[in-house]
Amino acid sequence: MENFEFYSPTCFVFGKSTENRAGELVKRFGGSKVLIHYGGGSVVRSGLLDRVKASLDKESIPYIELGGVKPNPRSGLVYEGIDLCKKENVDFILAVGGGSTIDSSKAIAAGVVYDGDFWDFYQGKRIEKALPVGTVLTIAAAGSEGSPDSVITKEEGMFKRGASGDAIRPKFSILNPELTQTLPPYQTAAGITDIIAHLYERYLTNSKEVEVTDRLIEGLLLTMIHEGPRVIEDPNNYEARANIMWAGTVAHNHTCGVGRSQDWLSHVIEHELSALYDCAHGAGLAVTMPAVFTYELPHDVMRFAQVAVRVFGCQMDFAHPEVTAKQGIEALRNFLISIGMPEDFESLGADPDDIPKLVHALCRGDGRDGTISGFVTLNEDDCTKIYKMMV
Amino acid sequence: MENFEFYSPTCFVFGKSTENRAGELVKRFGGSKVLIHYGGGSVVRSGLLDRVKASLDKESIPYIELGGVKPNPRSGLVYEGIDLCKKENVDFILAVGGGSTIDSSKAIAAGVVYDGDFWDFYQGKRIEKALPVGTVLTIAAAGSEGSPDSVITKEEGMFKRGASGDAIRPKFSILNPELTQTLPPYQTAAGITDIIAHLYERYLTNSKEVEVTDRLIEGLLLTMIHEGPRVIEDPNNYEARANIMWAGTVAHNHTCGVGRSQDWLSHVIEHELSALYDCAHGAGLAVTMPAVFTYELPHDVMRFAQVAVRVFGCQMDFAHPEVTAKQGIEALRNFLISIGMPEDFESLGADPDDIPKLVHALCRGDGRDGTISGFVTLNEDDCTKIYKMMV
Repeated sequence: MENFEFYSPTCFVFGKSTENRAGELVKRFGGSKVLIHYGGGSVVRSGLLDRVKASLDKESIPYIELGGVKPNPRSGLVYEGIDLCKKENVDFILAVGGGSTIDSSKAIAAGVVYDGDFWDFYQGKRIEKALPVGTVLTIAAAGSEGSPDSVITKEEGMFKRGASGDAIRPKFSILNPELTQTLPPYQTAAGITDIIAHLYERYLTNSKEVEVTDRLIEGLLLTMIHEGPRVIEDPNNYEARANIMWAGTVAHNHTCGVGRSQDWLSHVIEHELSALYDCAHGAGLAVTMPAVFTYELPHDVMRFAQVAVRVFGCQMDFAHPEVTAKQGIEALRNFLISIGMPEDFESLGADPDDIPKLVHALCRGDGRDGTISGFVTLNEDDCTKIYKMMV
Repeated sequence: MENFEFYSPTCFVFGKSTENRAGELVKRFGGSKVLIHYGGGSVVRSGLLDRVKASLDKESIPYIELGGVKPNPRSGLVYEGIDLCKKENVDFILAVGGGSTIDSSKAIAAGVVYDGDFWDFYQGKRIEKALPVGTVLTIAAAGSEGSPDSVITKEEGMFKRGASGDAIRPKFSILNPELTQTLPPYQTAAGITDIIAHLYERYLTNSKEVEVTDRLIEGLLLTMIHEGPRVIEDPNNYEARANIMWAGTVAHNHTCGVGRSQDWLSHVIEHELSALYDCAHGAGLAVTMPAVFTYELPHDVMRFAQVAVRVFGCQMDFAHPEVTAKQGIEALRNFLISIGMPEDFESLGADPDDIPKLVHALCRGDGRDGTISGFVTLNEDDCTKIYKMMV
């Protein structure tokens, strides 16, 4: 196990009706003027935004609003939010929505207290200072409610890039599984897939002797495999929603990722798909993961065999471990299809003719040197083959 | 799953040589004059105390010292520490040691800023304010390095009682597995047993639909079952020590205990043993747990069968689940014996003639009404039977 620092100071407030505590929590964490940041009309139509506002009113905390966050959130709205917060002397950002809204809120929070262009942070500069951020989560997926990370897409060139820093970890996150019950099945399934991807990205490691984090990841994967189909079958199943929601947070707050190298190649390979086609990140991952894992398999057959046996209940083929390893990837693929995710370029709405463009953006975009690294290192030829496996 | 609030703001600094960062961390968390609190001579002899002092010197942070914490830490030294801190204007408590030292440090931290008798907190008053506490952990066991809890024994009457409050959560905890390599095997095994007990206490729940926390607990139990024997066989196995250390912290920082009722009957029943005989808490738990679980088994056969199958690999007897359930308890008992823990009153050094006294202290001591509650509710007759099962 490698040395590490683990710091997850977010206060998670979990359960039914907890959105009514937003005002109390903003106050506890020092907010005196709030920007409520959100996406489309669903938080308005569902009455969630009104309940959040009422809870701020109850604490006499003034607020302004900025809606319009899109999936794969864009830099344009971030610039707008930064200007608005400066003009209105906002000192707390409250995200009401999913990962996109939270990521956009984090970018605004960092940008308001920074003299330069906020995009600097998405080109590698560490975020050291930011306004405090709180969240009211509406989908279990990105894990952004407990992470120090944010992903934003820059309109010019459609580059999708990430930034990090403890300063943008939410001070609090309100997790009410009821709020996820109205999600369409496709979005629910895309969220489940995103959580599963966060677990695999951590699982695929070159670090040795990491049994404790292996076992934690496997426990969370087993939970997702068990609860996923229940929630797809009955969207109102509160208990299944609750299990998935806590799994999604623990999957990404680093508890199970510490002290080990990680992969994240599926994520970066997928990012080009959602940047180009604006597909759901989780749906892109459903197509990407089996291809990437099949390509990575020879690098560490026993690791893929281990997850196949421990999570998918495959029988170990001791004479041919690669058979078991492949069965595990196939089982994952079948699971993702079973919950309604796409399985190839066509069902994702991607065009095989774009592969050269995808590979170029992936390996050469934004200053990259022609390779990407994680569990393995891939060059443009490898990435071309991987995208072709998805066709 | 039940509503919950999860807040674990402790910064965990994990790995080799991390004790040399103590000064930097005290500074980061605002300490300007430190009480270094520790136990016996081992932290002196090993040179650990000198390394910690050197790191404080490096940051020009003045400190005073108070050693002498005993296992099952006593109120007398807490009063002494409180007086010392007041007199010397200490504003940060640095615990260098195991759970006893950390618990004593937390009690001092709460007592310094409280006008009344600190024992009030151990009689049910919530701790709302305390000096900041940091820790340098020397044994994986109690989980106190990441918990809001402290257990102290009052000399008059030898009552062992707990107190809680977010204010006494350590600001940082330094976890260097190397520091645990010099522990005698018995103490190592007692620590392993304590961690396993923390997991079972959370596992035994009357809450329904808690798959995610079930799976996390099972993952940590599997880790302990795998790594425990490795570290007993080779005390210098850094990797096994590291896996156990992180498992011990996650087992007790509430990640895997949220949203579910818990048991804790093994702990309260054991507390009377370690209070009376001053035995290692973990050793007492090794004797207590199988008896308590056997007594609790009829209350929820399927829960005990589940842990038997998922953790100990027992084959499920679908016609007679109670057979599988019992096999799981027997497997736990055999595991604890295999790592060198006592199995009954005699090997623990307890006297069967004391059972009436133990039961009285347990069920009537310190204002209790004759029953104790957790996974089940037990009266004096039940507790007598349980202690007799340990003979």
